[in-house]
This record gives sequence, C-alpha cells and structure tokens, in this order.
Amino acid sequence: MDAWLQLPAKTINADLAMQARQHQRTLTKPAGSLGQLEELAIQLAAMQNKLFPNIRHITIRVFAADHGVATEGVSAFPQAVTVEMIRNFAHVGAAISQLAEELEADFAVVNLGTANSVPAHVKVLNYAVGPGTRNFCVEPAMSSGQLAQALKAGQTIASEAMANGADIFIGGEMGIGNTTTAAALACAVLREPASALVGSGTGIDNEGLARKIAAVNKALEKHQALLGEPISILECLGGFEIAALVGAYIHCAQLGLAVLVDGFICTVAALLAVKINPGVRDWLIFSHQSAEQGHQKVLQALHAHPLLSLGMRLGEGSGAAVAIPLLRMACRLHNQMATFENAGVSDKSHGKSE
Amino acid sequence: MDAWLQLPAKTINADLAMQARQHQRTLTKPAGSLGQLEELAIQLAAMQNKLFPNIRHITIRVFAADHGVATEGVSAFPQAVTVEMIRNFAHVGAAISQLAEELEADFAVVNLGTANSVPAHVKVLNYAVGPGTRNFCVEPAMSSGQLAQALKAGQTIASEAMANGADIFIGGEMGIGNTTTAAALACAVLREPASALVGSGTGIDNEGLARKIAAVNKALEKHQALLGEPISILECLGGFEIAALVGAYIHCAQLGLAVLVDGFICTVAALLAVKINPGVRDWLIFSHQSAEQGHQKVLQALHAHPLLSLGMRLGEGSGAAVAIPLLRMACRLHNQMATFENAGVSDKSHGKSE
Repeated sequence: MDAWLQLPAKTINADLAMQARQHQRTLTKPAGSLGQLEELAIQLAAMQNKLFPNIRHITIRVFAADHGVATEGVSAFPQAVTVEMIRNFAHVGAAISQLAEELEADFAVVNLGTANSVPAHVKVLNYAVGPGTRNFCVEPAMSSGQLAQALKAGQTIASEAMANGADIFIGGEMGIGNTTTAAALACAVLREPASALVGSGTGIDNEGLARKIAAVNKALEKHQALLGEPISILECLGGFEIAALVGAYIHCAQLGLAVLVDGFICTVAALLAVKINPGVRDWLIFSHQSAEQGHQKVLQALHAHPLLSLGMRLGEGSGAAVAIPLLRMACRLHNQMATFENAGVSDKSHGKSE
Repeated sequence: MDAWLQLPAKTINADLAMQARQHQRTLTKPAGSLGQLEELAIQLAAMQNKLFPNIRHITIRVFAADHGVATEGVSAFPQAVTVEMIRNFAHVGAAISQLAEELEADFAVVNLGTANSVPAHVKVLNYAVGPGTRNFCVEPAMSSGQLAQALKAGQTIASEAMANGADIFIGGEMGIGNTTTAAALACAVLREPASALVGSGTGIDNEGLARKIAAVNKALEKHQALLGEPISILECLGGFEIAALVGAYIHCAQLGLAVLVDGFICTVAALLAVKINPGVRDWLIFSHQSAEQGHQKVLQALHAHPLLSLGMRLGEGSGAAVAIPLLRMACRLHNQMATFENAGVSDKSHGKSE
C-alpha cells in the first residue's frame, strides 16, 4: 500500500470546540435551540481552527469513470451516458453544475477514465487511469498500479483544493454502473449479503435489480480470498472514481480540510477511507440520507447522522451541495448573533444581563 | 366571525403543476432522483402560476405578544424577555434577524401587544391589541373585538407582503409563554390531552413542565363549553401573535401567496387557519420538524411532511428561514438544468436524444 495513505489525519482542535460550545451558550436563544446547526458550527470551528468559522470557498469535484460491470446489465442507462454527462457537467446543464453556480463554488469534473472518449474542456481535469475498470464479475476491477494512480489523483485534487483556499471539499461521482460497484465494496467491508446493500440506483426495474444482486454475489464469491484488507477490496471491486474519492478524503483529512460527504457512493468511499486511515472520520460531515437502499447501513457503520433526508438519489455531489446553505447559516448564526450581555436580554439562569 | 375569513382561498393551478411535472421528466437526471426538491418546484410552479417559479423576494414577519398564562410559571424565561427580544430582532442580534440578512429578506417585527412597553423602531410595526392576553386559566384570553383586531392585523401584513412583491411569506413568533398557549389551542382543536401536546418549550425543567400541563388542563376544563368552533377556541385560549398568524395565513391563501410554515407554534396557527378556511391548506409549505414534543401530532393532523428535521426549537421563524435555500435550489434546478434533448444525453427510456 502507498505509504502516504497511512500518514496521520490532522488532529481536530478540541479546545476550540470547547470554546465554540461556550460561545454558543452566550447567544440570545435558549441553549440548544438551534439543534444540529449549533453542533455544525462547533464542529466547523474545531476543524477550521478558529472560533468563528466560515464556508465561503467551496470546492466541488465530480469524479467520473466507467465500470466494467456495466456489461452485466446493472444500470437503467447505457454506458455512453458517463461521457455524455461529463459534457453536461462542463456545459453547466447538470444538477450539480447548477447547484455549484447557485453556491458560487469552484467546480470541475475529474475524468478518471471512461469507455468512450471525453472531449477536452477547461472544466474537465484529465486523470484517466484506463478506459474504465474491468468487469469484476470476471477479474479484478483494476491493477494495483491503476489503484495507486487513482488514489494519487484524489490526493492531488485535495491538495489543489487546499492550496486554492477551500473552506470545505465536496466530492461527487458519476459513472454508469457505480451503485453496483459501491454496493459490492460495502458488502465486502461490512460483510453483508448483496441483498442488503444493492438498490435500484438510477431507477432500474426488478429484473435489473436481480442482475445487480447476482453480479455482486458473483464478484464477492470470485474474489473472496482477497477481500480482507480495504486496499485489496478496492483493487478487486472498486471503481477509478471511487478510489480517487478515497484518496481525496484521506488527503483532505491529512491537510485539515473539512469534507462534506454526498450520498451512497461517496459514503462507501468514506467508509473505505476510514477503514484505511481511521483518523479521517473526524473530518467528515455527512450531508444527506439518500433514497438508495444501502445508504443507511453504510451511514450506520460510520456512526453518521446526516443533515438532510429529502429522498434524493442523484449522486454527482448534489445532496452535499444542497446542504451547504445549512453550514453557511450555522456559521452566520454562530458568528453574528448577539450575546445575552450585548443585547440586554435576560438569560434563563442568570436573569437580566444588562 | 368576520366575513373575510371565509372568503375562498385562491385556486392552485393544477394544470401548471402537470406541466411542471412533465418538464421535470425532461431534465438530465433519473426521474424522481431529486426527491422532495422536484415536488417543491412543481408545487411552487402551481402556486406562482408560472412554469418557472422563483423565490427571490422573501417577506419575514415575526409576530410578538405577551401571554397572561405566563403568570402560571410556564416559561423558563421571565416575561420581560418578549420586549427584550423585540429590540434584539430590530437590532439584528437575534437568530431570525441574522438569517433574514443572510437571505436578503424583507424583515420586520409586528408588535401585537406586550406587558412592557416597546421602543419605537423602523423595524417594529405597531399593531398592539392590548398589554398581552389575559390568563386563560382564569378567563378568556381575549375579547372578540381583540381577536378580530389581531386577525385583521395579520390580514394587513399579508396584503402588504403581496403588494411588495413577495414570492413567499414566512411568519415567525415570539412571546414568553406561547408554547403553552399553542399547546392549549392544539389540544382544543385535536381533542388531545395536555400531556400529548405540552413540551419543554425554551427548556423548562420538569416542575415547570408539570405547571404547563396543569395550566393547559385547567384552561381546557374552564372553557370546555366554548371549545367547539376554531374562532371561539382562539378567543378563549389564543395569543394575539397566534391570531395574527392565523389571519396572515388565511389572507396569503386568499391572495395566492405561498406560505412557509415554521415550527410548533406557527403550525398550530396553520391548523387553526385550515380549520377556519380549509382551502388555506393548499398554500402552506412546511419547513421543519421541530424538537418540541407536540409538533409531530399537529403536523400529522395537517398531513404535512416538513423538509427539515434538525432538532431546532427556537421559533421566531428560524426553521422556515433555514429552509429557504432548499426552495431556491429546487427552483434553480427546475428552471436551469439542461434537458436530455438539449444536452444530447441518452435517456433511460428513449435512448440517445441527440
């Protein structure tokens, strides 16, 4: 395994978390009445190492790649859609592109390798590892060299986000077949049967769902002997874009850059990142509970309580983007509300503070 | 009862809802994959009577008043806090004031009548009905004249919001003792015992909670004979700010202005508005599930599925304000995403559309 993956995550500033919690108690509201928004502000203060955190600069990177398992008929959409959507991301037509505009985020697609060719575009960063993974029902999805390259691509993307002054990092994903890949990975890590983690993805019918379950079971059986370590699981069953997400999450944590995790596929990447390097967990904020069947189990394994539950199941980073205003408002309230003392409002425990 | 309360709510444009739903199907995403954001956009299109709705102009009004029942020791905070918080709202120190700034919303406080005097301020609109309600454990909370005046104040506020070009209306509330008032109202409407709807409000201890339950039970018993009609329930057990919210919600619906409902107290006002004028229900969007114990039952009675559940329990309209970006993003996605045809992305059912 590449040595950089094991370098420790930055330590969260627990002292600042305590100060931020104390500051929350001085604000003109009943203690705890802002619920998760209070915890968010405290968490961001500790991550950003300052009492008054901010979510101004957002980096969104959609990691895209093709999946050999698509040939098993596991998606409602043809494989051509991966590249068509990369173009759509770049041309500001996709959901995540529009959300990025709304948030004034720094947005780009990271191409990890597709079956069809990707047209050059300023918003498409080329980190192609190969023409998609191989079909993991038949052989390992990638070579160890490809895995190292994809992880490294994620590392580079995280470094650039940090260098560009990001306050938070959002990874998204696109790749026809990748809910099957993510389910296979989660099954291997959590030792669950395919039926517990395979869902309908972009909306496949019951026959397609049966094919997805069969494909995952076949892969788990085929690679059984190699599914002990998370790195080996990634090599056998992974996707290039998922491996890049794992690398990005790990390096964000090493740099001390907060990560906002999207839905099912990104949460599986987060699970692998945490299995490889447990300190990564401290740097992850979970944005939403997706409608995809397997998501809840993966969230539970990470002890994650996401902010939103809107029945979304699009991927691309869209759920994370939708949660950004909650972080911004949590910071605003934390940073700018009046204190009982300054506002001359009587506190519950102390009476009039004026 | 004032005749205006019964004037019909505007009819929702069901045809536009159908067109908006059809438009959603053409966008470059799996059908339904944006979950509640799709339904929101469709609902807003129907309410705003245009295929491409917008949430640009937001009117936020915090209705404030004092409650006679505060003398029963039902709040964790002294009654002086009502006026102290009105000042804090006006001076941009409160949570809702900061959220209004973040959203660039049109914000003001509406003073319906407090025990202490309210200093004049451009952001405080004076609609005082009296120096707070009377203690409903002893006598009716207000006279029928006061009730009519408070309802009318809400009507005026709604008219002004509409005249000022609001795309959506948020009502908030402030008034020491008003979770007790709201619980009493909800008990009377839903015929539930006090224990089912009284919660800890701003954070009262167990003894205080027992006093709240006792006060509500006493009031329900005292006014038993008069708790048939919603208007009479409001007169016996209401608050001025809650009555004004009822008037505002009803008139928003009559004018065709979408309402974003906040937490427990506002949802009780919404329940009364719908009981008085059932057509109002079509114009209500529910923003969040609060941590206050009774909220869920009141939401269920309205068949409401709120957008957020963040453990908030502050009131002021804060939960509704926090949900506004979801509405804005729902509109942005609906209005500006590319279609399968325009983007040349292959659709699931039709294959390549280019």
